[in-house]
Amino acid sequence: MKQQALNQNEQSELQHIRIGLLGLGTVGTGVYRMIEDYQEDLQHKTGCQISISKILVNSPNKLRSIEINPDLYTTDPNEVLQDPNIDMIVEVMGGVEEAREYITQALNSKKHVVTANKDLIALHGGELLSLAGEQNCDLFYEASVAGGIPILRGLGDGFSSDRITKMLGILNGTTNYMLSKMAQEGVDYDTCLKEAQDLGYAEADPTSDVEGLDAARKVAILGTLGYNTEFSLDEVDVQGISSIDQKDVQYGREFGYELKLLGIADKQNEEVELSVQPTFIKKSHPLANVDGVNNAVYVHGESVGETMFYGPGAGELPTATAVTSDLVTVVKNIKLGVNGKGNVAPFNVKKMKPKERRKHSYYVRLLVQDEPGVMATIANSLAENNMSISNMVQKPYSEEKAEVVIVTHEVSLLALEDWKGKIESLNPTLELASCYAVEGGE
Amino acid sequence: MKQQALNQNEQSELQHIRIGLLGLGTVGTGVYRMIEDYQEDLQHKTGCQISISKILVNSPNKLRSIEINPDLYTTDPNEVLQDPNIDMIVEVMGGVEEAREYITQALNSKKHVVTANKDLIALHGGELLSLAGEQNCDLFYEASVAGGIPILRGLGDGFSSDRITKMLGILNGTTNYMLSKMAQEGVDYDTCLKEAQDLGYAEADPTSDVEGLDAARKVAILGTLGYNTEFSLDEVDVQGISSIDQKDVQYGREFGYELKLLGIADKQNEEVELSVQPTFIKKSHPLANVDGVNNAVYVHGESVGETMFYGPGAGELPTATAVTSDLVTVVKNIKLGVNGKGNVAPFNVKKMKPKERRKHSYYVRLLVQDEPGVMATIANSLAENNMSISNMVQKPYSEEKAEVVIVTHEVSLLALEDWKGKIESLNPTLELASCYAVEGGE
Repeated sequence: MKQQALNQNEQSELQHIRIGLLGLGTVGTGVYRMIEDYQEDLQHKTGCQISISKILVNSPNKLRSIEINPDLYTTDPNEVLQDPNIDMIVEVMGGVEEAREYITQALNSKKHVVTANKDLIALHGGELLSLAGEQNCDLFYEASVAGGIPILRGLGDGFSSDRITKMLGILNGTTNYMLSKMAQEGVDYDTCLKEAQDLGYAEADPTSDVEGLDAARKVAILGTLGYNTEFSLDEVDVQGISSIDQKDVQYGREFGYELKLLGIADKQNEEVELSVQPTFIKKSHPLANVDGVNNAVYVHGESVGETMFYGPGAGELPTATAVTSDLVTVVKNIKLGVNGKGNVAPFNVKKMKPKERRKHSYYVRLLVQDEPGVMATIANSLAENNMSISNMVQKPYSEEKAEVVIVTHEVSLLALEDWKGKIESLNPTLELASCYAVEGGE
Repeated sequence: MKQQALNQNEQSELQHIRIGLLGLGTVGTGVYRMIEDYQEDLQHKTGCQISISKILVNSPNKLRSIEINPDLYTTDPNEVLQDPNIDMIVEVMGGVEEAREYITQALNSKKHVVTANKDLIALHGGELLSLAGEQNCDLFYEASVAGGIPILRGLGDGFSSDRITKMLGILNGTTNYMLSKMAQEGVDYDTCLKEAQDLGYAEADPTSDVEGLDAARKVAILGTLGYNTEFSLDEVDVQGISSIDQKDVQYGREFGYELKLLGIADKQNEEVELSVQPTFIKKSHPLANVDGVNNAVYVHGESVGETMFYGPGAGELPTATAVTSDLVTVVKNIKLGVNGKGNVAPFNVKKMKPKERRKHSYYVRLLVQDEPGVMATIANSLAENNMSISNMVQKPYSEEKAEVVIVTHEVSLLALEDWKGKIESLNPTLELASCYAVEGGE
């Protein structure tokens, strides 16, 4: 790119910022690449020369996709964490306990930290942010949620004047890829999972993705930042996609919905609900058209109204963009001498919403014996639980059985669970096949 | 909202930041409301007490939708601009020359400035930002582009590490409302305009919206910030929507496109193209589903890839959210003593892309006499101009005439204009009815 080149004086006046990189996997490689390739842009933007001066790796001799001076490698974390010349640590090694220890050490030595580690932040973010504040250090983690999408900056800066009331997120690319494929190609769950694994989107052990655990960590982080309230991971209700039936995906589409694994953070009258669950979204909702490995976060603010941030949720360079933009902010803060001042400590009192006030519409599919009186039994049981019907369709299933698909109006989770607990006992031929929340209108 | 209340000591230690508001129209009222309603949140987030201490209005006695102490009103700009107690000016009065003069005065008195004024920033942003820098003052203008969507922060902070290659924006809610309505309800242009005016979305004189001038200002601002290069408004090619035929909207949909008034900022090999034009967008593109008065900006970065920011482009509280979030940043900077340090001066050399390298696909509709040889004439003329056809459909028009709709593969603007200049002369019955660029795939 043609630029007004820095002259020699400008060059020599540049402050030199040295970075220690912990980990050189996909994201670490991307960060290294960006700092090399965009060096001149970064100098213009920060007034500093930025270089990676040490890299903690497991295998210095491993063949890599980029050429790196082997002198930068070390297998000894202390060589990075104790190096007085290193200003900042970029943690992209993953895992929880070791990363926590290294970051704690780094902060204690007054080194700033950028991390992409959602597991760590979801579990120990509060503790590490406090330590960072005490040490006048920055600790940024934009890449931990929704990869390249600058959603945490959106919440912390862009909407700093507003009160967030709802966040809905497609926060896991692997499961979104699988659900998009199930919807568009009619392929079943196992085939989609196999394909996602073959393409490298899903791990050999896909549990963390398909059971919603990965998304749950991101919901805890979004909730904490968006509501200025510290939430812990176990406050997020989690349900994955592994038992999803192709049939429900297609029936939902007939009703005008797309099935997505949705992270939900909802706040009403001070009470918060956090969950990850397969959810039908009305086709007209901006999230419904987010397909493939993409991520998106829908944010509703009391004043700003409906917004959405969309983009790549993973990948070498998208995630590296988030990490490196955090790094740029740290460098600017070093230049200004204001590190560790940007963090707003959670100031709202935590109050989780009880089941009787967690209200959603639901899609329910029942298998029933195709005989007189069954529909009456269903309708009566719904009425008794104060569940009203928005839409109801009966479809043939087998010679003797029929399927009944119901979309309810809003009902509390308490009433729904109560109904689910007793519906099968009302008639021995009744079977509750599936039940999913509905968002964005019935 | 239940919060951990500030204790008396904390309260009394709060620094007091005083704001002068220039203008109390829709956005100004929203800013006043947010600062009143969210005072406690803002104190938690900034550690400062924030108040509006003077408001410049034309008519102090006008009936307003909020109750404001009449002592705050003044009709004399000097009472705001010369008040030594005022730390910051929020300019939401609109217009160019007066606003420019007041902001210049404010900056010269070392008052920070937040403005929502796209006309002013598109025309004089560079000059005012330089002055702000010299005076160690902040000058922020997030609300000037895409209302409540924090897109300028996205470009300046979220993607600070990346190189932006393309920005496509639905930047004007009025025209997007009209085009959505034309597409979905088959209503013609005049009816849509009338309705938009009745609903208050369009002004009595709608020129600025429908002729693309409003969007062009936003493209100039996006281009300058996204490409770190100072562009002026006359470098944006502008075409509005006032001559759009309902027929083209519907034909486009048959081909799988939605017609949108798109702001385009494209950079390839150092060369930049800026335009506003009605453009067909492939239905699968995230922008194609942005309907009604909403705005959205699609950003492609070399590293991050495809992202999109979506939300309300106008309105009292959405726009006020952007203004007030800027204001929060100014307050935080005052607290840290780092005002005026955040602006990155444009550092790239400007190079506009010449017509021979501005390549797009195009949708073209021709009226032809339905007789032998006409199609051959069209096909030959396209071939001679090196324009290849992606899709071509002939439709009956009247007893004697037919319509030919063509979607081309990529062709340079130079070749297209050359072809447009001569096609009608090739056969006296040939008439070029319409021609629009196509984005997001043919």
